[in-house]
Amino acid sequence: MVKRYKKDSEVSYALGITLTIELLRKKLEHVTNVYVHSKIIKGEGFLIVEEICKNNNIPLIYNDKVFNILSKKENDFIIGEFIKYDCMVRDNSNHVVLVNPSNGGNLGTIMRSMVGFEFTDLVIITPAVDHYDPSTIRSSMGSIFNLNISLFSSFDEYKETYKNRVNYPLMLQASRNINSVDVAEPYSLIFGNEATGLSESYLSEGESLIINHSNLIDSLNLPIAVSITLYEVSKNKFK
Amino acid sequence: MVKRYKKDSEVSYALGITLTIELLRKKLEHVTNVYVHSKIIKGEGFLIVEEICKNNNIPLIYNDKVFNILSKKENDFIIGEFIKYDCMVRDNSNHVVLVNPSNGGNLGTIMRSMVGFEFTDLVIITPAVDHYDPSTIRSSMGSIFNLNISLFSSFDEYKETYKNRVNYPLMLQASRNINSVDVAEPYSLIFGNEATGLSESYLSEGESLIINHSNLIDSLNLPIAVSITLYEVSKNKFK
Repeated sequence: MVKRYKKDSEVSYALGITLTIELLRKKLEHVTNVYVHSKIIKGEGFLIVEEICKNNNIPLIYNDKVFNILSKKENDFIIGEFIKYDCMVRDNSNHVVLVNPSNGGNLGTIMRSMVGFEFTDLVIITPAVDHYDPSTIRSSMGSIFNLNISLFSSFDEYKETYKNRVNYPLMLQASRNINSVDVAEPYSLIFGNEATGLSESYLSEGESLIINHSNLIDSLNLPIAVSITLYEVSKNKFK
Repeated sequence: MVKRYKKDSEVSYALGITLTIELLRKKLEHVTNVYVHSKIIKGEGFLIVEEICKNNNIPLIYNDKVFNILSKKENDFIIGEFIKYDCMVRDNSNHVVLVNPSNGGNLGTIMRSMVGFEFTDLVIITPAVDHYDPSTIRSSMGSIFNLNISLFSSFDEYKETYKNRVNYPLMLQASRNINSVDVAEPYSLIFGNEATGLSESYLSEGESLIINHSNLIDSLNLPIAVSITLYEVSKNKFK
């Protein structure tokens, strides 16, 4: 029986038809069930879901109660269930490293920007908000299914696993402006927690960078800072 | 007696000590009362509030019930009350124009980025989320008190009032990349609603621009798109 989602659940959920289609297209091998509400309108989106499920022996289960348990939105009529998977970040790719991110909406928005600027590898240093929470998945607009995500319990552990790369911690204490640097690949862009940023010790973890802004604000919002950084360093890809 | 905030309330509220200090420093003339919870710790922040109130004959009212009515957070111990004010955008400044923004958290985040990149003038085309909602003010981290904000009921009405400026609508249908343009001042950067963007008619409202990104996402999140645009066009200010 379906239960309310918890961090230690073996499965998670893509709520709504758009997310479910993304899930089926990108992570089909992990999908266990697709739930359908009796109020479903069998339009184009539904036909796509139905066909993929049929061709891949994924049960399409009509059950309205599941929606009461899993979804707070009244207009979710399809839910995709999948087994949480591991998908290690790659050694030769550029990484976004989030140290202790605490807000699922922010995390989802960051994933969406990453996919927007063709970043594929996300490292999360725990403790952190659950990246598999259905609300985080929803905020990502399905971008999570396009990403490799690895969790580490400390930055040191991450560094030991992924060597030979240039670290760029984003810090208010940095002196070098993001728009004046040519990043050397493969690199890791490192961002701190929403409330606390990165601790001073990160100043010695590579070349620290700052997005210069007026002193009328303390800092930019985390997903804004990450997205501006990704935009800036990937500019040459999008002319 | 204090009532739960509504869109048609004459007053609104800065929840918490940080926002209240911003309010007192930036919009002192509009402040009516400051409420204090009995659990307040009389640290540095409180002393600042107390001094400003004393010097300006603003009542400092100890009343715990007000907090039950106005705040959902348990660690707000100060609330600043102010009469909503009008503060027209200026003719010779650059504008950010938001057409029908629907999410208060997004609106607040946009305000914070505006202040971060030294934009002072925000135009909102209604219908739109209430920019004076305390949750929007909270999302802005107090940046709202640094901005001039004007509301118009249509883009045409705005155009008739503010002529002789260059309009740059941000649109997925645009062909010109934001990073290839030298904007002519004074300008207006125009952004559509979270779900619908700008309608095609905006293609003829000046020079439309796009933030190029991969086709794996439909669009960037609205505050992300606004903030990247502000970052890009204000780059020369922050070297």
